[in-house]
Amino acid sequence: MTAPSRMNNTPITVPRGLTNVVVTDTALGDVRGHEGFYHYRQYSATDLAASRSVEDVWKLLLDGSLPDRRESAAFAAEVAAQMPLSADMLAALPTTAATSSGSDPLSGLRVALSLEGDRRGLRPLYDLTLQERRADLIALAAKVPTIIAALARIHAGKTPVSPHPDLGYVANFLYMIQGTQAPEEHVEALSAYLVAAIDHGFNASTFTARVIASTGADGAACLVGALGALSGPLHGGAPSRALDSLDLIGTPENIDAWVRTQLESGARIMGFGHPVYRTEDPRSALLKKVAQRFGGPRVEFAVAVEERVPVLLDQHKPGRALHTNLEWYAAVVMEIVGIGRALFTPTFAAARVLGWTANILEQSADAKIIRPSARYVGPPAPQPVPDH
Amino acid sequence: MTAPSRMNNTPITVPRGLTNVVVTDTALGDVRGHEGFYHYRQYSATDLAASRSVEDVWKLLLDGSLPDRRESAAFAAEVAAQMPLSADMLAALPTTAATSSGSDPLSGLRVALSLEGDRRGLRPLYDLTLQERRADLIALAAKVPTIIAALARIHAGKTPVSPHPDLGYVANFLYMIQGTQAPEEHVEALSAYLVAAIDHGFNASTFTARVIASTGADGAACLVGALGALSGPLHGGAPSRALDSLDLIGTPENIDAWVRTQLESGARIMGFGHPVYRTEDPRSALLKKVAQRFGGPRVEFAVAVEERVPVLLDQHKPGRALHTNLEWYAAVVMEIVGIGRALFTPTFAAARVLGWTANILEQSADAKIIRPSARYVGPPAPQPVPDH
Repeated sequence: MTAPSRMNNTPITVPRGLTNVVVTDTALGDVRGHEGFYHYRQYSATDLAASRSVEDVWKLLLDGSLPDRRESAAFAAEVAAQMPLSADMLAALPTTAATSSGSDPLSGLRVALSLEGDRRGLRPLYDLTLQERRADLIALAAKVPTIIAALARIHAGKTPVSPHPDLGYVANFLYMIQGTQAPEEHVEALSAYLVAAIDHGFNASTFTARVIASTGADGAACLVGALGALSGPLHGGAPSRALDSLDLIGTPENIDAWVRTQLESGARIMGFGHPVYRTEDPRSALLKKVAQRFGGPRVEFAVAVEERVPVLLDQHKPGRALHTNLEWYAAVVMEIVGIGRALFTPTFAAARVLGWTANILEQSADAKIIRPSARYVGPPAPQPVPDH
Repeated sequence: MTAPSRMNNTPITVPRGLTNVVVTDTALGDVRGHEGFYHYRQYSATDLAASRSVEDVWKLLLDGSLPDRRESAAFAAEVAAQMPLSADMLAALPTTAATSSGSDPLSGLRVALSLEGDRRGLRPLYDLTLQERRADLIALAAKVPTIIAALARIHAGKTPVSPHPDLGYVANFLYMIQGTQAPEEHVEALSAYLVAAIDHGFNASTFTARVIASTGADGAACLVGALGALSGPLHGGAPSRALDSLDLIGTPENIDAWVRTQLESGARIMGFGHPVYRTEDPRSALLKKVAQRFGGPRVEFAVAVEERVPVLLDQHKPGRALHTNLEWYAAVVMEIVGIGRALFTPTFAAARVLGWTANILEQSADAKIIRPSARYVGPPAPQPVPDH
């Protein structure tokens, strides 16, 4: 990218919402919407999801290469060591959980992660070395599953479960939510979802994390801001809506009537459609396979709706394509592994936090603040201030 | 602005940091850096600071016009009604203050504001009417001085002071910090600073607030993210650094030696310089006058340094101009009115929060997510995932 002189203050007009405007170079990955393909570093993200642990892929994004067996174990141990919450923090959480009355399931996590950053007395990224930044970001992100599980248990009147030192990130997540060790096939299924959800180009939350990082603020400030953006209804990432659709349809006989009603009223069909993919969403294809390994009526019903919607849409408005997005089978997979619907979005957020850490680390290497402009379109100034 | 079709995915290259890139139209105001002038709506911001209350100017930014006497009283009452914290919230604050060990003075405020949003169960802006959005934003922002003062008092081992129902925003801020009613000239001086600091174009924190608002997230998510950006060292807005400079210089005889050492070592002189103003910073000029109404050795010393730095700089590197920025006399004014140095940045943040509410309200009228792109510059993908 060229960087014109600051003295040239000519405003640069770009598309609304900064669509297609290149904010930065990145070596973290890309989404090739027309090919139905996305990648982390040089690897297909869905290949990684099918074959590597969350820790391996997190390390790939943070450090630039996939770990070998020894490095993998070392990084998993580094993450495991950061998962427990301090006694202070655990003592403070009930205040957060007790008051967490919002319709936004991310807001309790936002408070707790903000508090964790405050408690740690984090220094601004700008004042830290790369290794110190990395350590702060790992310490925060590794606690996200622990916070989500603890808040959920407190909310349900149960005692939080501490992470088990012998379990990895995904197995621990399920263990801390459920209080018992999950079967290996559940861990594998959730792992596939989480890896597939870690990163996905320059969505608004990732961009928020990078804007805040560009000011040199501390890691918690960046992650908390990104969580805020992720909570927005226009962002996407609320897989529970897909189950809501399945519940509303109810039975296979109702599919056609329900979908036609949605199409005719112009309402969105939750779990379908994506602003970038023009083909099948590769995340949906991956998670469909994961879900089908388990089978059962819910999976068959989800597949039936997935197959029927494009047919009905083509009758309603020929030529438009509509595919399931990440949310559709993510919801089915999370239900299979026993994650409650209220935790779907926080679980998605836990995955995204890992991607944000890599984005923050990459952004913080560039000591240039992201500071765009606006065009003033109000009445000419100055006009005299009227007396009271 | 033109909005090209989404199907045209050609990446648009722009300057690094989005410098001069117009993200949105705004009717809130502008900064004309070459003229040393900035305005809120159609009025000079410094004229407003010299003649209108914080509440009047906040209403101007939120609603588009300056209130008459009746409207002014009504809005001040609306704000006053929102200043008190609930008993629940007051009970939760000590956890926040007790653990607030960070070097970042905004981080306790970030936690508490996040908690306030969570407690209120805020709905996403996207799901609200304009009036509901406005009410949520006022309810949050009006509590910021109360939170700052309560955290400071708890931290100092004192009991928080509730807002006085007969006092306005600024008088209450000083009252809640100090526990006694401040003299009228202190209220006027702080009011001038706060009004002057409410908004200042598209800085990184304002932009962060708008990016998060563009996802439709709730008001607390937007404000908390913006607070994170404001806490970054590259953002600016840490007036205590100006007093640190004065302390380091110590006495008038040391000015030349200290400034020369700074210039020769290439270090920044805190309180001087601004990325946008090429002339005197109008905020500095205003607050200098405010400070000089009080006089005293600290003010005289600040003026002496202000006058000497450009002379010494011209000897060091002829042709460069360097003026005091907002921080220089803001620090002096805040010290005069008895605000402790640790509260300088939170006080600045309290002002900016008001500007953010107007920016969030304006942004939320446009249901278009801000979602730029990045350019992938890593190794070509996909490559086969290596075995473990």
